[in-house]
Amino acid sequence: MITYDFEEAGEPLYIFLYKSIKKDILSGKLRPHEKLPSKRTFARNNGISTITIQNAYDQLISEGYIYTVPKKGYYVSSLDKMVHQDLKAKVNYNIRIPSDEDYEFDLSSNRINPDNFPFSIWNRLSREIMNDRKEDLMKISPTAGVRELREAIASHLKSFRGMLVDPDQIMIGSGTEYFYGLIVQLLGRDKVYVIENPGYRKLEKIYRKQDIESRFASLDEKGVTVDELEKSGAEVAHICPNHHFPTGITMPASRRYEILSWANSDEGRYIIEDDYDSEFRITGKPIPPLFSIDACEKVIYINTFSKTLSPTIRVSYMVLPVHLANLFYRTMSFYACTVSNFEQYTLYKFISDGYLEKHINRMRLYYLRKRKRIMDIISMSGLSDRCSMIENDSGLHFLIKIDTGRKDSSIKRKLKEHGIKLNALSEYYFTGEGEQHFFIVNYSNLDEEKLKGALKAAAEINWSQR
Amino acid sequence: MITYDFEEAGEPLYIFLYKSIKKDILSGKLRPHEKLPSKRTFARNNGISTITIQNAYDQLISEGYIYTVPKKGYYVSSLDKMVHQDLKAKVNYNIRIPSDEDYEFDLSSNRINPDNFPFSIWNRLSREIMNDRKEDLMKISPTAGVRELREAIASHLKSFRGMLVDPDQIMIGSGTEYFYGLIVQLLGRDKVYVIENPGYRKLEKIYRKQDIESRFASLDEKGVTVDELEKSGAEVAHICPNHHFPTGITMPASRRYEILSWANSDEGRYIIEDDYDSEFRITGKPIPPLFSIDACEKVIYINTFSKTLSPTIRVSYMVLPVHLANLFYRTMSFYACTVSNFEQYTLYKFISDGYLEKHINRMRLYYLRKRKRIMDIISMSGLSDRCSMIENDSGLHFLIKIDTGRKDSSIKRKLKEHGIKLNALSEYYFTGEGEQHFFIVNYSNLDEEKLKGALKAAAEINWSQR
Repeated sequence: MITYDFEEAGEPLYIFLYKSIKKDILSGKLRPHEKLPSKRTFARNNGISTITIQNAYDQLISEGYIYTVPKKGYYVSSLDKMVHQDLKAKVNYNIRIPSDEDYEFDLSSNRINPDNFPFSIWNRLSREIMNDRKEDLMKISPTAGVRELREAIASHLKSFRGMLVDPDQIMIGSGTEYFYGLIVQLLGRDKVYVIENPGYRKLEKIYRKQDIESRFASLDEKGVTVDELEKSGAEVAHICPNHHFPTGITMPASRRYEILSWANSDEGRYIIEDDYDSEFRITGKPIPPLFSIDACEKVIYINTFSKTLSPTIRVSYMVLPVHLANLFYRTMSFYACTVSNFEQYTLYKFISDGYLEKHINRMRLYYLRKRKRIMDIISMSGLSDRCSMIENDSGLHFLIKIDTGRKDSSIKRKLKEHGIKLNALSEYYFTGEGEQHFFIVNYSNLDEEKLKGALKAAAEINWSQR
Repeated sequence: MITYDFEEAGEPLYIFLYKSIKKDILSGKLRPHEKLPSKRTFARNNGISTITIQNAYDQLISEGYIYTVPKKGYYVSSLDKMVHQDLKAKVNYNIRIPSDEDYEFDLSSNRINPDNFPFSIWNRLSREIMNDRKEDLMKISPTAGVRELREAIASHLKSFRGMLVDPDQIMIGSGTEYFYGLIVQLLGRDKVYVIENPGYRKLEKIYRKQDIESRFASLDEKGVTVDELEKSGAEVAHICPNHHFPTGITMPASRRYEILSWANSDEGRYIIEDDYDSEFRITGKPIPPLFSIDACEKVIYINTFSKTLSPTIRVSYMVLPVHLANLFYRTMSFYACTVSNFEQYTLYKFISDGYLEKHINRMRLYYLRKRKRIMDIISMSGLSDRCSMIENDSGLHFLIKIDTGRKDSSIKRKLKEHGIKLNALSEYYFTGEGEQHFFIVNYSNLDEEKLKGALKAAAEINWSQR
C-alpha cells in the first residue's frame, strides 16, 4: 500500500498526490500494470477526501500514466522505455562547436566599434515606439514587413541610390542569407547559379545547402564578364557590381549594360545585385545600381543595415522587380515576416526622422579618416617597402599587395605565429589557385596602436624566403 | 557648347558639374559619342578652374558615363538603353497584395491584446541592455544565438517542461517557419515528410516551397496513429503531440511511446515536435514532451515566444538531439543567427530575472478566466441549444460543435453575411471532406461585447435548412 506524507505538501493536495504517484511510476517504484488503491481505501488510510484522489487520478489518466478498467480500478500504464532524468542536473553533452581561432590581432573582423552605434538615439526611439505604438506593435506584420518601414526604405533608396521603387516591391527580412533562400523558392530550385570568382565564400555554401548548383565566373578589371556568365551556362547571376567583395572593383556603366543585356537575352535569366556596403563607398560617387537601369525586370536588389548600423541588428531588405513581387505575393505570402515589429518600427523612425542619413554622413567621414590613418600607419611601417595599397573605392576594406617570394599560405602561417589574422585574396577563389600576395584589410574596427605592433612583428618575418 | 549656372550650385562645384553633365547624358541632351568641351575651354567659358572640371570628368569616367580618347578628348559613352526616371515621382506599380477580407468580428484571430504585453518591463530591460551591454550588442552572435539566452531557455525548459537540455542543443531563430527550412537542410531534401490531417495549413505550403513532398496522417482520439505514419511511407513526422492544432488533442504517454518506437525502427526517421503553446495548456498539467522521453535522439523540439509574449516579437527556438546538433555545427555553422542581439539580450534578461514565469502565470489565469467567460456567453446565447463546446485542454482556442443541417461552407457564407469570421475544422483537412460542424474559437483577443452581438446575429440564421 502506497502512502505519502501529506503534511509535507506545500501545494494543493491533489497536485501533491499526482506528483508523488507520477514520481513513483517514473522511478519504477510502481510497476507497469500494478493496481493502485481504490479511492475509498486510499482516502481512509491517508485521511484525505476521495475528491482529492479522484482529481489526482484524473490528471494521471489524462497524461497516460495510469489507466482505468471499468468496475475493477486503476492501473499503472506500461511505460517500459521511460527515461529517468535527474531534473537537478545541468547538462553538457560536449557538443563540438567550431571555435574561432584566437588571434591577438584580427585584420579580418568586420565588427562595428560600439562607440559608433547610435545607442542613445536608438534607445530613445525604441522607448517612444513602445509608448506610442502599442497597438501596431501587437499587429501581425505583413509578409513583406511593416508598411511604414518599407516607405522609409523606398525614400532612402531614392536619395542615396537614385532608385525609384514602390514600397510593395520591398521585402524586409532578418539577414541577406534568409533572402537567398527565399529567392531560390521564388525562382525555382531547378536553376543553376553563377557567382563571382573570387567572391563571398559563404554564398557557395548557402546555395549548396539549398541544393543549388553554383558555377563560377572570373572577373576582369571591370568586374564579372559577360563571356564568363555565358560560359557558365547558369541562369541566375549573383553579383556585387557596385563594390565587389573582396577585390573592391566597381563595375562601370558600360559593363552594366552588357550584363543586363546578358540577362535579357533569355527569359529565365536573372541577376541578384548584392549592394552590401554601397553607403560607404568612400571615394567617388556611387554608380547607379543595376536595378535602377534595368528596364526589363531582371534585377533583384539586396541590401542590409549591417554596414550602416550593425551586423548584430539583423535587418535586411530586397527589392523585387514588379512581376516577381506579384509572384511572391501570389505564391509565398503565407510566410511570416522574420523581423520583430519592435525593430521594424524603431528603424522606421530612425530613417524617417533623418537619423540614418546623419549617421551615414558621420560614419563616412569617420571611415574616410580612419582609412587614411591606417594607410599612413602601413606606409610608415617597416613593411612599407614591401606593401602597396590598392584603392579601388573599396568601402570598409582595402587590399594590400605584399612583395614577397613566399606563397600566401606560408605568409598566413608566419603571421599566425605572430598572433596576426590577415586573409588573402587567394582564399576567396572557388577554383584555381588565385592571384597571390594580395591581402584584405578590414579596418572598420581596427585598433591603430595594435596595428603598429602587428606591423612591427610582421616586419621581422623573412619575406624574401620562398 | 554646354553651359551651366554655377551660381545655383549649393554644393562643391565639381559635384554640381558632375551631376549636371550626368543629367544631360541621361536625358539625351548630350548624345552618345558626342565630344565634350576640353577642360581649358570649359574652364574659361564658365569662369571655373580646370581642376574642378578634371574632378567632375574623372567621376563621370569612373562611373562609365564618359570615356577619354588619348590626345583627342572626352566623349559621351553609349548608354543606349538608359532608362529615364523622374526622381521626383512616387512609384506605385499596383502590385497585387492578397488582402485579408474585412470582417466586423473575427473569431480566427490569434493576436495578443496590447494590454497583455509587458511593455513597461520590456522597455526597461531593453534600456538596461543598451546601457550595460554595448560591447556584447555589437559582437556577432553565434549561429545558434547568444549563449546567455540559450542558458535561460534551457532553465525555462527545465522548470516548465521538465526538459533537461544542453544550451548548445538550442538554436535561436526568427520564427518557427525559418526552422522548417533549416531542418530540411539538416536532414536532407530527399526525405518525405508526414503531417497531421487535419493540421496546420501553412506547413504543407512551406514544405512544398522547400521542394519537400508532404503526406498526411489521420488522427484518432489520442492523436496521430502509428498505423497512419507507417502507411505514409514518410521518414519525418511533423506533429503537435502536446496540443494538436486545431483539434486540441493531447497525446497520452502510451501513444507517445508508440510514436517514438516508430521513429526508432528506421535509422532515417525523425520526429519534429511542435510545442507551440504548451505554456498555455490551461486545464490539466502538461505531459512531458516527446523530446524528454526520447532516448534515441529522434526528436527535434520546436517552440516559440509567439504565444507567451507576442507573435510580433519573432523569437523561436529549436532543440536538436545531440548528434544533429553536432551535424548542424559541422555543416551549417556558417549561417548567421537571424535574431537581433538587442532582442536576444532583452529576452535573456526577461527570462533570467523571472519575468517570463510571472508573465506566464498571470496570463494563464487571465486566459482561464477569459475562456470561462467566453464559454458562458456562448452557453447563454440564443445559439446555446445548437452549440456544444469541446474542451480538450486546448490552449488558446477551443472547438464548438454546431447542430445544423447546413454544410460548413454554407455556414461560413451565412456568418460572413453577418460580418463574422469563424473557421471550420473541416478547412484544416488536407485530404477528404473532413468532419463537419466543428468550428474553432480563438479567444486570446476576443471582444466579449462584440461576441454577444455576433451570437445574436448568428442566432437569426436558419440553421435547420440544408
